[in-house]
Order: sequence, then structure tokens, then C-alpha cells
Amino acid sequence: MSKTSIFSAIPKLDYEEKAETINKEEFIKTIKSRRSIRSFTSEKVEEKDMMECLELALLAPTSSNLQCWEFYWVKDPSKKEQLKKYCLGQPAASTAQELVVCVARTDTWKENAKQIVSNFENSERKVPKAVLSYYRKIVPLAYNQGVFGLFGVFKRFILYFRGIKKVTPREPTSNSDMRVWAHKTTALACENLMLSLRAYGYDSCPMEGMDSKRIKALLNLPSGAEICMVISAGKRASNGVYGKRLRLKSEKFIKMV
Amino acid sequence: MSKTSIFSAIPKLDYEEKAETINKEEFIKTIKSRRSIRSFTSEKVEEKDMMECLELALLAPTSSNLQCWEFYWVKDPSKKEQLKKYCLGQPAASTAQELVVCVARTDTWKENAKQIVSNFENSERKVPKAVLSYYRKIVPLAYNQGVFGLFGVFKRFILYFRGIKKVTPREPTSNSDMRVWAHKTTALACENLMLSLRAYGYDSCPMEGMDSKRIKALLNLPSGAEICMVISAGKRASNGVYGKRLRLKSEKFIKMV
Repeated sequence: MSKTSIFSAIPKLDYEEKAETINKEEFIKTIKSRRSIRSFTSEKVEEKDMMECLELALLAPTSSNLQCWEFYWVKDPSKKEQLKKYCLGQPAASTAQELVVCVARTDTWKENAKQIVSNFENSERKVPKAVLSYYRKIVPLAYNQGVFGLFGVFKRFILYFRGIKKVTPREPTSNSDMRVWAHKTTALACENLMLSLRAYGYDSCPMEGMDSKRIKALLNLPSGAEICMVISAGKRASNGVYGKRLRLKSEKFIKMV
Repeated sequence: MSKTSIFSAIPKLDYEEKAETINKEEFIKTIKSRRSIRSFTSEKVEEKDMMECLELALLAPTSSNLQCWEFYWVKDPSKKEQLKKYCLGQPAASTAQELVVCVARTDTWKENAKQIVSNFENSERKVPKAVLSYYRKIVPLAYNQGVFGLFGVFKRFILYFRGIKKVTPREPTSNSDMRVWAHKTTALACENLMLSLRAYGYDSCPMEGMDSKRIKALLNLPSGAEICMVISAGKRASNGVYGKRLRLKSEKFIKMV
């Protein structure tokens, strides 16, 4: 919603972060060699590596920086066995060394916005008023959908009429939009996690074929939390890749207009 | 939905793809130096580089390999100007050299499943029957929600009862689930795109603050297509980064259970 007023101009900031030069071949290798692995060896994932990969996941961009994600690294042996079952016993889960449940939170934005403001207030660098007011005023307006989503309906109504003549942001104005919003940001971090595992010498498989209801109960998650995907990790077995990567022709998906 | 029967065991395949060794430091630099850039210089993005980054985006994992994504690289000058306005005129768009509209498709899975089957049928390698039958039988059951989502309601009902005693996949059983599903996969590719741009020496900014209705009209998109995000690209200006990356404490998001 209306980021217009605040973000139409760059606030004066005394900060610069230079772009690093990357050896792009190493990066391309990472993306190209990441495959969804269906069978892992018995080799362990180093605890330190796993933690570093999870930390790298959190560096993905996040919508309004509201960090609506959570990553449950399931280590308890009995919970891990349960989780494998809840992933329908598929080999990508049952042979995995580690399993991470990636959770999208539609319900933590308010608390996180507060913490962000408090971080800004305690920061040595001066944060522009416009940014503070974005988190204090715009964020609650934008992400709150009200009881039964009624405030969302109201917003949709207002934005519809505003939008007849003016360029107008349209989402999120429903609980469905909030789900999309939270899953989208969480997926950005999931991709970071899978690529990081690859760069660290491991492999992964993202799984959506699972019993989300049982997994939520296992992790004691509230209703505003949704399972985005479960990511398994380990070293690929020789029969871990089903076959050559199959993508339909890229002209189908990349369109120049 | 039920991937159980087919994917509970790895089909016999005569295929191996060895894991590549990556210089992980280059990868970590890529993730760490990717920032959301609010202001770009006038330096161009090489056409070839942009295309390669878009191709790398398509190597992200995709749910059931159904490739429910599209990337509109808007090059036409007048459309580009329109698009900048529809991104609320924010500097991350108005100063961008290139703009890509990343689109989540809830409505292309049927056609894509057909093409995948036809690819398999024409393949030199023998594809296990179970895989073919997955695309022919399970995919239509799993992703079809019916008129007004009524088949989804029916599925939810069945799965609820099945789920009382048995581990049971739960989604997608509504149009909202289909939106989540399509956006999630598209976001995985979006993260690939942004990281690829960084590795190629460029920068990016993902934008959700935009008029999705006007952008859909601009690109002539059908109702089953949704704007996931708009990604701008270019080289960062010295005032392109707002400030140090702010992430709340990682213990808040990474939970060992």
C-alpha cells in the first residue's frame, strides 16, 4: 500500500555500500548443479555448515523488511522420524540427514515492525523520519486485514475507487493476499538456503508433498503460521537425481515486451 | 496431494549427476552483497547478461516441475515508462535500467503437464511409467479446483476424513492455495534472478509496492496470472543502499527443535 509518499524520493543518507566483484562462474555452477535430490548418502551435514546456510537464508530480501519467515531445524530424533513420515515417507525425506521446516508467518508483522522501529530508535545512525513513520503508520494500514478480513474488504473498496483515476497499490487486502505475501518472502529465503547448501558442498530437496496439518501440530504452530515447504539436506547418493533437468523452452517463460 | 504411491520409492534409473565443487566464498559474497537498491546509475545492463540471468532464474526448483512462472522483460520504451509509473514512481523503478515483471500463473499447469508428458514420450531415455502416470493422473487431481473452487472443497472434505487416521497431503484444495502455490515457485526463481544479477556485477530491487491491476492490463494478462513482484536491474548508485542491512536476531527465526 501507499509507499508513494514516503518512498518517492531517496532520503538523505550518509551511507554507501560498494558492490563486490564476484567470480560469476562459481555462482553459475552453484545454480546449475543444484538439483532436487531424492536420495542422500549417510554422510553427515556439519552442524556449523547447516547453521551458516540458515543464516544466509535470512539475507534474502523480505517484503517491507518484515521478515515473515521461520526455519525449524528438526534435530530431535523422535520428532525427525515423525517429520519424515509426515513428508509421506518420500525418499528425499526418509534418507535426508537434516530436515528444515520453512514456515511463512502471516501474523508476526506487527511485532516485527515494532522491533524494527525500536532498532531504529536505538541506532547510532540517524534514521529518516519518513522511514519510522512508514513502520508506525503505513505498515499497520497495509497489512492489517481486520476481523474476518473485513478491514481488507474495506480497503479493497477504497482502493478500487481511488484506482479508477490514480495509480494505486492493490495488495494485500485479504487473508489470501496475506498468505501469498508471507509465502513469497519465505520462498526467497528458501532458495537462498538451497543454493547455500549446494555452495557448501551439500544437496537439498524442497518438498510440498506433506501433511501440513500434522507438521503444524508437531511444531506447535499457531494458525497464522503455514508450512511453506520442507527442505531436506545431505550429500547426494549416486541415484539421487532422477534424470536430466527438464525445463520447457525458455521462450515460453521469458517474454520480451 | 498423494505423491505417496508413486514417489515412495526411487524408480530404477540409469542416470547420475555428480555434485560440483564450488568456491563457497564467491557464493557467500553474492548473497551478502545483494542489497535492495533504490537508485541506479545510467550504466546499461548488457542484453546478453540480462538474458543469461533470466535463464538462470528458470533453473530454480519448481513445484511438480510445472513451471508456473513467467518473466516479462519490458523493453518497449513507452511500456517501460508506464511500468515505472505503475511502480508508484519509486526511485528503484524510475532510475532502473531494466525492469522485469515476474508473474505467477495459477492457470498454466495443465498445458505444462501435457508438454512435460510429450517431452518424456519423445525422450531417448526411458521414463518410468510411474512418472508418466504422475503427470497424467495425479497432477490433474491435485491442481484442479473446479468451477468456483468446488472440486477443491470436495477434496478438502475427503482429505479431512482420510487425514484423521492417515498421514495425508492437504494442499492445494482452494483457489487461495493455488495462488500460494504459484507465487511460491515464482519467488524461488525471483531469488535466482536477483542473485544472478549480483553475480554478473549488477544490482536489483524487488518491488511489491505497485499497481498490479494496471500492470496486468499493460501486459495483457489473463485472470489466472498474478504479479508476484517487479524486479529492477542496473548498477547501484552511491546512494543506492538505504543503510546497513537490518535483520532482527536470527534466534527469532532459526529454531532448533
